Amino acid sequence: MTVAMDANALNRFLAGEFPQIAGSFRVEALEGDVLTARLIVAGEHLRPGGTVSGPSIFALADVAVYCAILSRIGPVALAVTTNASIDFMRKPAAGTDLLARCTLLKLGRSLAVAEALIFSEGLAEPVARCSMTYSIPPK
Amino acid sequence: MTVAMDANALNRFLAGEFPQIAGSFRVEALEGDVLTARLIVAGEHLRPGGTVSGPSIFALADVAVYCAILSRIGPVALAVTTNASIDFMRKPAAGTDLLARCTLLKLGRSLAVAEALIFSEGLAEPVARCSMTYSIPPK
Amino acid sequence: MTVAMDANALNRFLAGEFPQIAGSFRVEALEGDVLTARLIVAGEHLRPGGTVSGPSIFALADVAVYCAILSRIGPVALAVTTNASIDFMRKPAAGTDLLARCTLLKLGRSLAVAEALIFSEGLAEPVARCSMTYSIPPK
Amino acid sequence: MTVAMDANALNRFLAGEFPQIAGSFRVEALEGDVLTARLIVAGEHLRPGGTVSGPSIFALADVAVYCAILSRIGPVALAVTTNASIDFMRKPAAGTDLLARCTLLKLGRSLAVAEALIFSEGLAEPVARCSMTYSIPPK
Repeated sequence: MTVAMDANALNRFLAGEFPQIAGSFRVEALEGDVLTARLIVAGEHLRPGGTVSGPSIFALADVAVYCAILSRIGPVALAVTTNASIDFMRKPAAGTDLLARCTLLKLGRSLAVAEALIFSEGLAEPVARCSMTYSIPPK
Repeated sequence: MTVAMDANALNRFLAGEFPQIAGSFRVEALEGDVLTARLIVAGEHLRPGGTVSGPSIFALADVAVYCAILSRIGPVALAVTTNASIDFMRKPAAGTDLLARCTLLKLGRSLAVAEALIFSEGLAEPVARCSMTYSIPPK
Repeated sequence: MTVAMDANALNRFLAGEFPQIAGSFRVEALEGDVLTARLIVAGEHLRPGGTVSGPSIFALADVAVYCAILSRIGPVALAVTTNASIDFMRKPAAGTDLLARCTLLKLGRSLAVAEALIFSEGLAEPVARCSMTYSIPPK
Repeated sequence: MTVAMDANALNRFLAGEFPQIAGSFRVEALEGDVLTARLIVAGEHLRPGGTVSGPSIFALADVAVYCAILSRIGPVALAVTTNASIDFMRKPAAGTDLLARCTLLKLGRSLAVAEALIFSEGLAEPVARCSMTYSIPPK
């Protein structure tokens, strides 16, 4: 498989197309099948008690899957999430960034499927798992 | 079934416990089995082009399900989402609030299951559907 | 919306195309948006203790969604399930048929989304809920 | 983590408790975190054209997750599936057994979460992915 955009290109793309969120998310690495993305946790992502909120975890998974797809097909901004399934399994560690490790399972002409595990940085047991389907517009 | 908290009580609870998000979400009505919640759409919820973002739709469904459960069991702040499945079906209308219509399907001692349809206000076809499971802590 | 196949036409289609399972499933009614399908419970569907198995409940939801889609688009045998999410909420009643009440939420050119509630016949509380996405082949 | 039942013990348990299905499913291996289970494909699992049916794929994932949990907690027959999410990504190869590779992601006191990839034997690209939650009864 060919890499159409590497981590740097993906981060430039996020900054250009999604300036509202680009300060919170960063593609860390793209190694073989696995893309790693980071949520730079700030006050806006927290619930009372200092836990990262469910919607913020969802957003991280969404960015990771989106970037994993674009890493193969290039800057197709209009790819959209059609389905997501997420299991919240453990409370994230307080005051710690989250990392998503995302694997692309299928890249078809019109549908792509990926899964991601979400971790508090430095911990081995996942906070959440997520699978998502994206619809890819015809060229 | 008994109502433990009505719409006003739920809104007061959100304002007290989740001040970061209480300005964005409001319980509109609680009628029989169905709770309706509103996302007051603002700039922070939008993607380029003016569409409400996926994480914001997720957040609305989460608030609606949480409040539907609390409407029966009272102010148990520590109930947590364990699973969510969401289908994004249509692009939300630009510049329009979203409404979630949520139905509680199961309220067990330790698990509750609910589903929600999400609409752009005034439109008949749903933007998204979501089902969620919450874990309820022992008393 | 137009009805392309009614309950009788759907049952004839199942008998012709899926003879292995047509004896177990029957479309009961198609009323407005809602299609009702029955699983005629027999020994092969049971787990020890007489409960209908999870895969049999899944199969009923799948038949109901498939028929709800075909009721609109006609006998497109090659429509396939791409995603399913199911919550098992209560133990089915022993020795009782199951009914699925299925609602089509989206019927696009290439994707259809539907949800179904599954009941033990005669009981008000659902045994399970399911949402499914089907991919519809181009004509 | 301790292994409470190995592959042989799991197969004996299936044969004793679930004789209706034990001829179709077999635990192949339990290596570290990963349990591999096989669906011995026969006529009853096929759709017209020779493809393994969706409910049969679901059943394989369910057996794999169930056995992965029991491998840790021992023969708790009453553990039940509460949620499943499945993506069907590719058509299974005709006339070929399916293998599920299942990883346990969380084993709590009352809930366990696992994911599985399903393959046609000998092929590298997965047919389906599935995640499931089981409820474990109190001792």
